[in-house]
Amino acid sequence: MPSGGPEIEQLIQLLARLPGLGPRSARRAVLHLIKKKEQLMLPLSAALDRAVAAVRTCEVCGNVDTMSPCSICADPRRGETGILIVVEDVADLWALERAGVGQVRYHVLGGVLSPLDGVGPDDLNLDGLIGRAQDYAEIVLAMNATVEGQTTAHYITDRLAGTGIRVTRLAHGVPVGGELDYLDEGTLSQALRARTEI
Amino acid sequence: MPSGGPEIEQLIQLLARLPGLGPRSARRAVLHLIKKKEQLMLPLSAALDRAVAAVRTCEVCGNVDTMSPCSICADPRRGETGILIVVEDVADLWALERAGVGQVRYHVLGGVLSPLDGVGPDDLNLDGLIGRAQDYAEIVLAMNATVEGQTTAHYITDRLAGTGIRVTRLAHGVPVGGELDYLDEGTLSQALRARTEI
Repeated sequence: MPSGGPEIEQLIQLLARLPGLGPRSARRAVLHLIKKKEQLMLPLSAALDRAVAAVRTCEVCGNVDTMSPCSICADPRRGETGILIVVEDVADLWALERAGVGQVRYHVLGGVLSPLDGVGPDDLNLDGLIGRAQDYAEIVLAMNATVEGQTTAHYITDRLAGTGIRVTRLAHGVPVGGELDYLDEGTLSQALRARTEI
Repeated sequence: MPSGGPEIEQLIQLLARLPGLGPRSARRAVLHLIKKKEQLMLPLSAALDRAVAAVRTCEVCGNVDTMSPCSICADPRRGETGILIVVEDVADLWALERAGVGQVRYHVLGGVLSPLDGVGPDDLNLDGLIGRAQDYAEIVLAMNATVEGQTTAHYITDRLAGTGIRVTRLAHGVPVGGELDYLDEGTLSQALRARTEI
């Protein structure tokens, strides 16, 4: 028998589905929200409504923003360096932006090739990448240092072979098996500066 | 420079204020919400709106519910055992309900006496407790086994002295220094069954 009525129980169940929260921490979060109704619950409700209405996926790069093309794709200074960084996920794009890697553009694949999970080239935003690549002088492959990430990097390198576009990868410094989003900003920054020819 | 626009940034900052979430896990939670817009973000937004509109504090016991008096106070079977359990917090009430302690009623103090933090008797829902106590045969003091919790239990015992109401406390079994909300249901159930006279 749930405490507090169906509205509270449903809120707990939905919050428990967020990464990093389980049923117990979701209950604590909901009680915290109810205690701080004016300072936290109402603003969070309003912020969620605004985000639901405003958030969209950038049709150019796959970033998440409130406009499409996103603010990075729409910024002409971002195109001047001619560098396009290919990442698996929006979280990786955000991690690189936090590291302050400079005036670059991004391409979000939305995953990596993984035959075992049934993820093939058609499931990723790869055609979009091939279409954009010729507008850039250099493509930096910034996939995670996992088997799938490196397989995906090889696949992209093959697809871009013969186009004359410089294809690089992040410098070693990314720990093998690690994920970009968990790295500290200094390591990420260094890994981009020491990028090497594939 | 935040990624994703002010709506997303504000949502991250608000979620990061929930217990158990920090800035990094809040970012992951927001990305997860955006990816699962239809299945999770929209339902969560709606559930939060409904909870904001529906949730209120029970004027009798201090519980959180969608009605006041709450469903526990409104249930006549809950009064028949004549047992009123005094807890610090709504989380403790929920923990006891999950333990299935039976047809009892509750009184939520909203904290504990803590002179160092400037929390005195007037800051807690103590007058409400003294007013209700005479309707019950037994008051079970279920404060956390901390110094402040036990100080508060002594204070309430003193206030109820001479009324003839039986005042008990939870059995030892609650680990010293521990908090109710983190205990397993079996321990909580046993602790209530073996409650002893103060």
